[in-house]
Amino acid sequence: MAGGQDKGSAQADDIAMRGGGYYSLATIGAKHVIDAATALVLAEIERMALPRGRAFTLADFGCADGGTSIDMVRAALGALRARDAALPLAVVYCDQPRNDFNALFQIVNGETTIESYRDAFEGLHVSASATSFYRPVLPPGSLDLGFSATAMHWLSAKPCEIAGHVQAVGAEGAELAAFAEQGRRDWETILCHRARELAPGGALVFANFCRDEAGRYLGNTTGVHMFDRFNEIWRAFLAEGRIGEAEYRAMTLPQYYKTVEEFAAPFEDPGSPVHEAGLRLQAIETRVTPCPFAADFKRHGDAALFARAYIPTLRSWTESTFFGALAAERGPEARQAIIDAYYDRYEAEVRAAPEGHGMDYVHAFMTARKVA
Amino acid sequence: MAGGQDKGSAQADDIAMRGGGYYSLATIGAKHVIDAATALVLAEIERMALPRGRAFTLADFGCADGGTSIDMVRAALGALRARDAALPLAVVYCDQPRNDFNALFQIVNGETTIESYRDAFEGLHVSASATSFYRPVLPPGSLDLGFSATAMHWLSAKPCEIAGHVQAVGAEGAELAAFAEQGRRDWETILCHRARELAPGGALVFANFCRDEAGRYLGNTTGVHMFDRFNEIWRAFLAEGRIGEAEYRAMTLPQYYKTVEEFAAPFEDPGSPVHEAGLRLQAIETRVTPCPFAADFKRHGDAALFARAYIPTLRSWTESTFFGALAAERGPEARQAIIDAYYDRYEAEVRAAPEGHGMDYVHAFMTARKVA
Repeated sequence: MAGGQDKGSAQADDIAMRGGGYYSLATIGAKHVIDAATALVLAEIERMALPRGRAFTLADFGCADGGTSIDMVRAALGALRARDAALPLAVVYCDQPRNDFNALFQIVNGETTIESYRDAFEGLHVSASATSFYRPVLPPGSLDLGFSATAMHWLSAKPCEIAGHVQAVGAEGAELAAFAEQGRRDWETILCHRARELAPGGALVFANFCRDEAGRYLGNTTGVHMFDRFNEIWRAFLAEGRIGEAEYRAMTLPQYYKTVEEFAAPFEDPGSPVHEAGLRLQAIETRVTPCPFAADFKRHGDAALFARAYIPTLRSWTESTFFGALAAERGPEARQAIIDAYYDRYEAEVRAAPEGHGMDYVHAFMTARKVA
Repeated sequence: MAGGQDKGSAQADDIAMRGGGYYSLATIGAKHVIDAATALVLAEIERMALPRGRAFTLADFGCADGGTSIDMVRAALGALRARDAALPLAVVYCDQPRNDFNALFQIVNGETTIESYRDAFEGLHVSASATSFYRPVLPPGSLDLGFSATAMHWLSAKPCEIAGHVQAVGAEGAELAAFAEQGRRDWETILCHRARELAPGGALVFANFCRDEAGRYLGNTTGVHMFDRFNEIWRAFLAEGRIGEAEYRAMTLPQYYKTVEEFAAPFEDPGSPVHEAGLRLQAIETRVTPCPFAADFKRHGDAALFARAYIPTLRSWTESTFFGALAAERGPEARQAIIDAYYDRYEAEVRAAPEGHGMDYVHAFMTARKVA
């Protein structure tokens, strides 16, 4: 379940296009996050010793269709080219096997309305790997800068169902502990693979969903609590007999939002394989990125327009889990009808009482380095 | 127009599946060619000094969906692993941007009925580049073994229309000279890019469509001349008023089949940039690979079955050029109707008089090396 579902897709065309250089509202929030992380990438490129005898390799782990990171990659390549006019440059896009790599290549090759960097650089080599970041992706010692945004909250597996909620933010006791432990082990796995791939002196820049110092997380900053709405509507469907008890329980997102302390732990523990592999956390800070749909609503004030634009982005990264929770015996049409009704209900709620709805992003921005 | 259209596609499902380890008749001929080239690949791997400090990199240029080369790649990786238990191995699949890379990754990740090698090797890194082989694909000095089969007859551009035929095998005079010159320049371009990518001591193994020493080429070995049939049916459509004169003329495949001498020339001319870049032709020989559809027909004797199975493989690599030759003003439905009628006519011919029809492959198998 690795991969940047939150980053949208060129195929998600139920979101209207808008002008002014924005290609889709569904991806613009995730793009704001990556644009904000670009300064961290450029700082690493600036201080790094550049490789000799091989290409500088930049990898985007959980790249989705590559659209949200395209300006970050252009800026990174520009900074590298400014430092060395002849250094071969390699960009490797990585995501899980089911990602749409055709859409990725169309975007990166400049075949869409998104402006690509591909023809702006000589000596540039772009490739893609259909490999989860829970596995080795690149050859050892071949990675100079590993980037990832809004992807690593997806766990490699669901440790258990959450009895009374749909996401670990609503878990308690043993269930919460199981998710925290899964998150801990998955984070260690991700970092150990990246440590092996990194060249000495190489860096990682990640913008990962988190639970911040004030206890905030995605869709829970001010106002309506997004994950509670997901849960309460799903529970209403149970109460109304639209779904069964087992179906209610099986809706558990394989996600976990770590705190700054949880992100930092494996770097700081001298006994951890991450520390042993030479990875050191250079900096970490949390940031809130406002929901672009709620911001738009503040401007236009049209509740129906807001609801119609907002729900598809929630749907894009939750629908497959809701669908999978429904009993297979229902058949695909009946399952889809329940799913459609579910998001219609959420949309109706937003339309009727839009104030406070919104999905602010809460990220931990971090830089780590492999000792030279 | 680079890319292995002849190698079929996992999407070409109008060809029936068959058992016995063959996944599709549409690709089995092309697979036979690659299986035959595997010994050349293994011989190069055997004699080569293996890299230190980086992954051994094998690239398949014009890979299509990767299905036809999957056993070759498995054999190559096995030979490398036998020589070195720990050497990181990289496979890079390369094809033009419009190739179906999602299908490729599904096959290579073992998500189809085709048995993949992916889980058979530790330390294996698979990626793809959506880049034509007429451009730089890999960083300089990073390629150990470059492979290509049944792809490099596609020219980078069509130098002119061929007035009286659909393929350069039917061209004469200035038109033939223009195609030969385009083929010469394109071949030099391909080799210069590969020479730059190859590490010293690295090798290229290509199985390219050719015109052999006896004047034979694809679909012209014994019996019916395939390209003449293409041309004569297209001309009949002109005579019947189904297409116009300009449409008849515009049907020119951007392909050229080189002779052994033409393939060898840039390696042997000391003034050529290919020779200057250190590429040397080690061996070249031509081989005929029998048409699997005609072979099947010999067994079953059912002309209708043969015609129904045979025409889709011709269609797979010619249809887009025929479609493109038709006037845009007709609109897509009318153009498609003409195309459908065209292949129906060819199929009716084969059904009525099947003897002699068939598309034997005629390849030049070659090995080249970059001086160490």
